[in-house]
Amino acid sequence: MQDQLYIFGIRAVAEAINAGRAVDKVVARKGLSGDLFKQLQALCRQKSIRIQYSEPEVLDRITTANHQGVIAFMNQVEYRELPEVLAEVARRGEMPFVLVLDGITDVRNFGAIARSAECAGVHAIVVPEKGSAAINGESVKTSAGALHRIPICRSQKLYFAVKYLKDNGLRIVAATEREDSRPYFTTDLTGPVALIMGAEDKGISHSLIKLSDVRAQVPMQGSIESLNVSVAAGIMLFEIVRRRLG
Amino acid sequence: MQDQLYIFGIRAVAEAINAGRAVDKVVARKGLSGDLFKQLQALCRQKSIRIQYSEPEVLDRITTANHQGVIAFMNQVEYRELPEVLAEVARRGEMPFVLVLDGITDVRNFGAIARSAECAGVHAIVVPEKGSAAINGESVKTSAGALHRIPICRSQKLYFAVKYLKDNGLRIVAATEREDSRPYFTTDLTGPVALIMGAEDKGISHSLIKLSDVRAQVPMQGSIESLNVSVAAGIMLFEIVRRRLG
Repeated sequence: MQDQLYIFGIRAVAEAINAGRAVDKVVARKGLSGDLFKQLQALCRQKSIRIQYSEPEVLDRITTANHQGVIAFMNQVEYRELPEVLAEVARRGEMPFVLVLDGITDVRNFGAIARSAECAGVHAIVVPEKGSAAINGESVKTSAGALHRIPICRSQKLYFAVKYLKDNGLRIVAATEREDSRPYFTTDLTGPVALIMGAEDKGISHSLIKLSDVRAQVPMQGSIESLNVSVAAGIMLFEIVRRRLG
Repeated sequence: MQDQLYIFGIRAVAEAINAGRAVDKVVARKGLSGDLFKQLQALCRQKSIRIQYSEPEVLDRITTANHQGVIAFMNQVEYRELPEVLAEVARRGEMPFVLVLDGITDVRNFGAIARSAECAGVHAIVVPEKGSAAINGESVKTSAGALHRIPICRSQKLYFAVKYLKDNGLRIVAATEREDSRPYFTTDLTGPVALIMGAEDKGISHSLIKLSDVRAQVPMQGSIESLNVSVAAGIMLFEIVRRRLG
């Protein structure tokens, strides 16, 4: 859980955003100008963080501190510890189903994948602390609220999280076209599974592919090289669902 | 094929957009103002059509006509006739695979679905003449170029297009949660297939569902009611691919 409800001051807000903290939205005083604020506007645009322009009274009602006309609301996503989530899944007698996202930085893709994961009954989404899309108003909206429903586990080093999953008996499935990857419907996806999806450009880090038990791909039938990552994730997630239900 | 490369004049461009013609982008003279132009700006925003602001000389180089500072570039998508496309598929000895989109109006979803369709080897996308997303810069970009590669067939009445497909031996598969719909992996998706996807809110029109041979759905495992339509389309399209290859 985020410990702060909001952060105020132009520099403090910019620093928080640059540090990758989950800002939901920024409230700014109408008519605010100056170079520092313009830089903040550009930063918000770049990170898809919405700025809401309000009358001075609105900001003064939120805090009596010297807010300089800028207040950032922090997103109240509850981050969870992976062992804790897995223990709960075991207590409920369910078969673990985890999604690991390696370097998905696009806010919409991240939200769309979270939505599909919730629909597929995924127990937890594991993301790296750095280099993952912000959990903000935009991604929560695209996720249809899924980001508030699925436990999100942040890992300082994704490698150790995946190693932990593997050591605990989950089959590690890497969605990749590299190396000895095979069409997903010819691979073994049964039992407890952790599916890793990578960024559209770079794919999954080599160290994670090496850890994986299964390398699977969606075979392309046309001339376009790849699917959108959120569509590919949906196909892989529901193939696992199909095997469990079918 | 669109017969015009571009349309000029504020009113003419607004009329073309309102008539559902496929405008790729609008070039407007820098500093242009006035109520009519503001209305055009709002219309372009609403339809996700990009406005590029240029110096007067740029517009004068495009046409010597009285352009009033506004020129719309028409999208050069080649519309095809459905019978012609099916005849080609038959000549190549391939098994027909058609995607029918009933009321997909969101430009990004439309583009994303076209991308997945191309990746799945779909032969043609059938859309209604009215009430379908514009084929413009935004949807072409989201489609990763697929909208220039897959034949797009426009139908005045989607019912007759689907009836035509059915009469020609295609299995009509409606992706719907209504009526006697079953999990997609328990339905018959073999042979020549036309898959119908509907809008996220309204779904597929009742008349098309009645025409369908198979009603299939992706079974939800969580608490969110439905997948994003482009993800659902990807799952259904690749299930058909899986049956053909697997």
